[in-house]
Amino acid sequence: MSKESFPLAKVYGLLEPGPVVMLSTAKEGRANIMTLSWHTMLEFEPPLVGCVISSQNFTFDILTATKECVINSPAVELSQKVVDCGNSSGQTIDKFKTFNLTPAAASCVGPPLIDECYANLECKVVDEAMAAKYNFFILEVVKAWIDPLKPHRQTIHHLGEGTFMVAGETIHLPSKMK
Amino acid sequence: MSKESFPLAKVYGLLEPGPVVMLSTAKEGRANIMTLSWHTMLEFEPPLVGCVISSQNFTFDILTATKECVINSPAVELSQKVVDCGNSSGQTIDKFKTFNLTPAAASCVGPPLIDECYANLECKVVDEAMAAKYNFFILEVVKAWIDPLKPHRQTIHHLGEGTFMVAGETIHLPSKMK
Repeated sequence: MSKESFPLAKVYGLLEPGPVVMLSTAKEGRANIMTLSWHTMLEFEPPLVGCVISSQNFTFDILTATKECVINSPAVELSQKVVDCGNSSGQTIDKFKTFNLTPAAASCVGPPLIDECYANLECKVVDEAMAAKYNFFILEVVKAWIDPLKPHRQTIHHLGEGTFMVAGETIHLPSKMK
Repeated sequence: MSKESFPLAKVYGLLEPGPVVMLSTAKEGRANIMTLSWHTMLEFEPPLVGCVISSQNFTFDILTATKECVINSPAVELSQKVVDCGNSSGQTIDKFKTFNLTPAAASCVGPPLIDECYANLECKVVDEAMAAKYNFFILEVVKAWIDPLKPHRQTIHHLGEGTFMVAGETIHLPSKMK
């Protein structure tokens, strides 16, 4: 999928609605993917994102060691792969190969983008003060990419236990909110 | 709206999908409402929620002083009031009166529930270590309520600048994820 650079100032609009995302990491040439929904924006620009990565996950170890990751945004068409990545561990399988996902080189960080995702946010860990107590990492998005042909996609949102809400219609209301 | 007690262990399913919520606070008999989307679950049970409340908001001062709030979940029918609350400041108006919202007594905290919201989560601030640097507060949900007649509602999700995605269909995929 050919991607275009996406303005960092607009990144919040991708994550603020609360979609399920796929976090890619890599260490010593071994890439991994984790499915997660526990994330929040913390600042508009530079975009800061807080996310919870359980210390029980293989990703926790990689991220703690490398301080780099990519937040990838899947649309509803990728739902089965999103769940497959959530149901398995990178300790035992190569998720890119097993689930037929395509790694693409990032420009500012080591881990690969997931090419099939419609947006990719290259991130560096900037604060781990809450990692020990809450598994909470603060990431700065240093580079963002989007599919220029379909920048608005139907995201999926986890309601728990494998039930997902698929993004519906959009409405606009006059708002002073950013 | 007559509410029923909702299990704390299920609270994550209300917030994990990333809906816009309305935070009610109160100090010295004066209640306020803030619209916010920057929140994340941090723990299943007891449910911990992290949320960003800008120090520029009136709510920041109240929450810092009282350490209590209610997270209220509006469905799409309340969209205009959600935006109205986001477009105004409690320093100059009483949002409950101005926007015709009904305060209902909470059971464990001082601030009122917003009766028109289909779910209400009574919260206490349990960690403010990140409040000064990131405006990030960690809340524990101590009591949860839901409308038993319509527990599943069409939530709204902010895409930025007053554009909202309305919750669409739900799908289920076999998942080991909680």
